Amino acid sequence: MANPPWTRRHIISLSDFQPDEYDTVLQTAASFQEVLSRRTKKVPALQGQVVANLFFEPSTRTRSSFELAAKRLSADTLNFAPGSSSLTKGETILDTAKTYLAMGTDIMVVRHREAGVPLTIAQEMDRLQSRVGVFNAGDGQHEHPSQALLDLFTICTLIDEKPSLSLLADKKIAIVGDILHSRVARSNIWSLTASGAEVHLAGPPTLLPKLFAEFVTSSISAAQPQLARRLFLHWSLEPAIENADFVMTLRLQRERMTQHLLPSLREYHQQFGLTHDRLRSCRPAVKVLHPGPVNRGVEISSELMDDPTFSLISQQVTSGVAVRMALLYLMGSGKI
Amino acid sequence: MANPPWTRRHIISLSDFQPDEYDTVLQTAASFQEVLSRRTKKVPALQGQVVANLFFEPSTRTRSSFELAAKRLSADTLNFAPGSSSLTKGETILDTAKTYLAMGTDIMVVRHREAGVPLTIAQEMDRLQSRVGVFNAGDGQHEHPSQALLDLFTICTLIDEKPSLSLLADKKIAIVGDILHSRVARSNIWSLTASGAEVHLAGPPTLLPKLFAEFVTSSISAAQPQLARRLFLHWSLEPAIENADFVMTLRLQRERMTQHLLPSLREYHQQFGLTHDRLRSCRPAVKVLHPGPVNRGVEISSELMDDPTFSLISQQVTSGVAVRMALLYLMGSGKI
Amino acid sequence: MANPPWTRRHIISLSDFQPDEYDTVLQTAASFQEVLSRRTKKVPALQGQVVANLFFEPSTRTRSSFELAAKRLSADTLNFAPGSSSLTKGETILDTAKTYLAMGTDIMVVRHREAGVPLTIAQEMDRLQSRVGVFNAGDGQHEHPSQALLDLFTICTLIDEKPSLSLLADKKIAIVGDILHSRVARSNIWSLTASGAEVHLAGPPTLLPKLFAEFVTSSISAAQPQLARRLFLHWSLEPAIENADFVMTLRLQRERMTQHLLPSLREYHQQFGLTHDRLRSCRPAVKVLHPGPVNRGVEISSELMDDPTFSLISQQVTSGVAVRMALLYLMGSGKI
Repeated sequence: MANPPWTRRHIISLSDFQPDEYDTVLQTAASFQEVLSRRTKKVPALQGQVVANLFFEPSTRTRSSFELAAKRLSADTLNFAPGSSSLTKGETILDTAKTYLAMGTDIMVVRHREAGVPLTIAQEMDRLQSRVGVFNAGDGQHEHPSQALLDLFTICTLIDEKPSLSLLADKKIAIVGDILHSRVARSNIWSLTASGAEVHLAGPPTLLPKLFAEFVTSSISAAQPQLARRLFLHWSLEPAIENADFVMTLRLQRERMTQHLLPSLREYHQQFGLTHDRLRSCRPAVKVLHPGPVNRGVEISSELMDDPTFSLISQQVTSGVAVRMALLYLMGSGKI
Repeated sequence: MANPPWTRRHIISLSDFQPDEYDTVLQTAASFQEVLSRRTKKVPALQGQVVANLFFEPSTRTRSSFELAAKRLSADTLNFAPGSSSLTKGETILDTAKTYLAMGTDIMVVRHREAGVPLTIAQEMDRLQSRVGVFNAGDGQHEHPSQALLDLFTICTLIDEKPSLSLLADKKIAIVGDILHSRVARSNIWSLTASGAEVHLAGPPTLLPKLFAEFVTSSISAAQPQLARRLFLHWSLEPAIENADFVMTLRLQRERMTQHLLPSLREYHQQFGLTHDRLRSCRPAVKVLHPGPVNRGVEISSELMDDPTFSLISQQVTSGVAVRMALLYLMGSGKI
Repeated sequence: MANPPWTRRHIISLSDFQPDEYDTVLQTAASFQEVLSRRTKKVPALQGQVVANLFFEPSTRTRSSFELAAKRLSADTLNFAPGSSSLTKGETILDTAKTYLAMGTDIMVVRHREAGVPLTIAQEMDRLQSRVGVFNAGDGQHEHPSQALLDLFTICTLIDEKPSLSLLADKKIAIVGDILHSRVARSNIWSLTASGAEVHLAGPPTLLPKLFAEFVTSSISAAQPQLARRLFLHWSLEPAIENADFVMTLRLQRERMTQHLLPSLREYHQQFGLTHDRLRSCRPAVKVLHPGPVNRGVEISSELMDDPTFSLISQQVTSGVAVRMALLYLMGSGKI
C-alpha cells in the first residue's frame, strides 16, 4: 500500500488519528472484507498470538465481534468474565491487566464503564516496556473507536468499493440523539469531521448542551482548525437531516428518563425518532445507521429499521468484523 | 451413501422427518463416531465456518456437547451468554439473531424457554434470504430434536453397528414420566413411532393427560396414519415396561411439586421410579435411557443408573457429540 | 531426558511427589518456556484432545492460565460455568464429571471449594477404567499443586536456567500469612521441604496453630523423615525472614476478619505485611512471591509489590502458563 507503515500500538481515541491512518484502516478492512467472502474465511496473520477480551462492562455484540475477528486472524482468545473474577476479591484493574500481560497476552481489548480505563492500562503497559497493544472497546462516555471506524467503513464502501476518507468530503451527515452521553458520537465526531464532511448534531438540549458543543468544537479547532467550521448543532431534528446523505441515530439509554433528562420515550420519538416520513427531507439515497442494540420505536421506527433500502444496521455489524480484523492485524503485525 | 442428498437447512422438529433423513443422520453419526475413536479426533469439515450457540436458556451439558461437536468439525464457535447480553438492554431475540447473522454466523444453535423461538428465527433467516441454518437445541415444552436423534442412535448402534431406523421395527419402547412438559418426549415420540416401534407412554394422569395423548395420536395419524396405532398410553408403569426392550425415563422438574401436579417425589419414585426390581418384567436385555441431568432416587434408583448392564446414560452423552457433529455437518455441508 | 518416564495420571497433591517427578516437571516447563519466547508459541502436542475446565469455584486468573496452556498445546477447551449449570438442577458433581468423560474429555481441570473433590473425581474416573487425567486446580484448603510447582519453577529458573529441585538445597524460604487456610501454603510445604530448603512458616497464632504445625511436621516425617527437621514455625515475621533467600506471602481472605481470627487488616499489615524496610534483614538478593490476587497494602506494600528488584509476582504468572503446559503435556502425552 501507498500509506506509511502503521506505528500506533494502542487504539484508544480517534482524536489524533491522521488521514493516512484512517485510509490504512479502511483499505485493510476492505481486504479482510474480501477474505470474509471467500470459502475459507480465516487467515493465519495472528497465529500463536493471544487476544484477551477484558470486558469489565458486559457486552454481547461487541465482544462476539472482537472474538470472531481475532479467531478469523487465527489468534487464540481469552475472555475475562467480571462476574467470576478477582475484582470481587479486591484486585485492581491494573493488576488484572498485568496478570494478562504476564500470561503472554499480545492484545488486550478493554471495555469499562469508566472513561479512561483503557488509556490507563495502555500507559501502564508502556511503562512496563511491554509490547502489548491495548484496544479501547468502549470506555464510559469517552470513546468507542472501532464503532466509529466501522461506521466510516460502512459509509465509504457504499460510495466506492475502494474506501477512503476523502470520499466523504462533500457529504452531509447527521448524528441524532443522546450526544452528551454517547461514546459512539464522540468517536464519530472525530472521524467524520476529519473526513471533511459536514457534521450536524441534533438532540434535545438536555442531551446536547451548548457548553458541550462548544467544548467539542474547540477541541476540534485545537486539533485541526479548518474542520471545526464543519460541525453544526441543532436542538431539533429537521435542520440536521435536511438534505443529509447519512443519518446516524444513537441508542437512548432508558436511565436518561429516571435522570429527568427526558420527558418520555414517546415524546422523544415524536421529536427525534427516525421514520420513513421524516426522511423525506433528506437526500433521496439517504441511509440510516444505528450502533445497536436498537430500542425499536424510540430512536427509529421498526419499519424503517427493517427496511434495507434505508437501513445500514446489518452492514454495520458485518463491517465490524472486517474493521476489527484490520485493527487487530495492524496492532499485531509488528509482533509477528 | 445410498440416501438422497440432505436438503434440510434447519433442524427444528422431527414431526416431518422422513425415514431416509433419519437413516442419513444415523449413518453420518456412525462415521463420526468412528472418527472420535481415532488418535486425531478432528475433521476439517466446517473449517472457517462459525457456529453460534445462542442459549437464551442456560445449559451446561447440551451447550458443551454442541460446542465440542463444532470444534471437532474445526468450526469457530461463539457463545452467547444471556446474562451479559443486549437482551437486558431491550433488544429483541430476532435482533440478536440478526446481529449474529450479520457477523457471519453459518449455523445458530438456539435454546429458549419458549416454544417456537428457533422456528421464528429460522423463518426470519429465510425471509432475509440468508443461508444460515438454525438448530433447535430445545425450545420450551416443544421439541429437542438432537436429544431424540442421539437416543435413536444410541439404541440402534446397540442393535447393529450399522444403524438404521428399521432396526427398531419390532421393538417395544417405553417413555416414562412427565410426558406433558417434556420436549424430549415429544421429539422421541416422532422418531420412535416413525421407526415402527411400539411406543408406550407412562406417567401419572396429571403429567400425561388423556387430552394430550389424543392430540399426539391425532398429530401422528395426520402425518402417518399407520404409525398412530403403535402409540399406547398408560397411567401406571407396569403395562408400559412389560416386555419392553428399552425404557426411557424423563427428568422430573422439581417445580411440578409446587404446581400441585405431584403428591411427593417419594411417592412418584414408588409409582414410576425405575429400579432393578421393576425391570424384571422387561425383556432380559432391557436397557434404560435418561436425557440427564438425573435426579438420583427419583426417576431412577442410583444403583440402576450406575449399572452399566442396564444403563445407557453414558453412551447417550457420547452419542450426543457424534450425532451433533453429523447434524452440524449435514446442515453446513452445502456451504463449503 | 534422563528422568524416568512420567507415570502419574492425575495431579492431585504434591504429598507423594518424588524428586525425579519435580525435575521432570521443571525441565519440561523450561522447554515450554523456551517455546513461549518463539515467534510461534503453539505446539501440536495435544491436538485433538479435550481439556475441560470444571471450575466449580470461579476464578479468573487460574482458569485463564490453564485455558491458555491448553490452547498453546493445541488442545480444544471446554469451560464449565457453574452459574449456568446442571448443578442448580440437582445433578451431583460426579455426574457432571461423568458427563464430561462421556463427551470425550481427556483431561479435567477441577477447582472446588471443598477439599477432596478432585481426588474423588479421579478415583471415579479410575473406577470407570477411563484414561482421563484429573488435575487439581485448587480444592478448598487442601492443595493447589500447579501453584506450588510454578513457584518452584520461578525460584529455580532464577538460580539457574536449567531448573532442578536440588538448586534449593541450601536456601532459606519463608512462607508468611494465613498458613492454616491456604492450599497454596500446603502444596508449597511439600515441594519446598522436598527440595531440602529450610522452610520457615510465619503467621499469627490464629492462622498458624501449633497443632496444625505439628500435624504438618508429622506428615512430612512420615513421608520423608530427614525433611521434617527443616520445617520451622514462627509467630512473628522477623525470625522467619532473617537471612531468607525467598519470602512467599499468602493472600489474606477478608472473611478471616469476620471470623474473629484477626484484629484488623491494619494491624496484620503492621505485624506480617512485607515492605522494603522489613526486607532489610533478608539476604540482599531476596525475592518476594505472592500467588495473587494481592490485597495491596495488606500482605505486601504496593511499593514492594511493584518493585521488579524484589517482586517475582509477574514471573510467577508467566511461569504458570509454562508449568501448566508441562503438566498437561505430561498427563496427556500417554494418550497421543
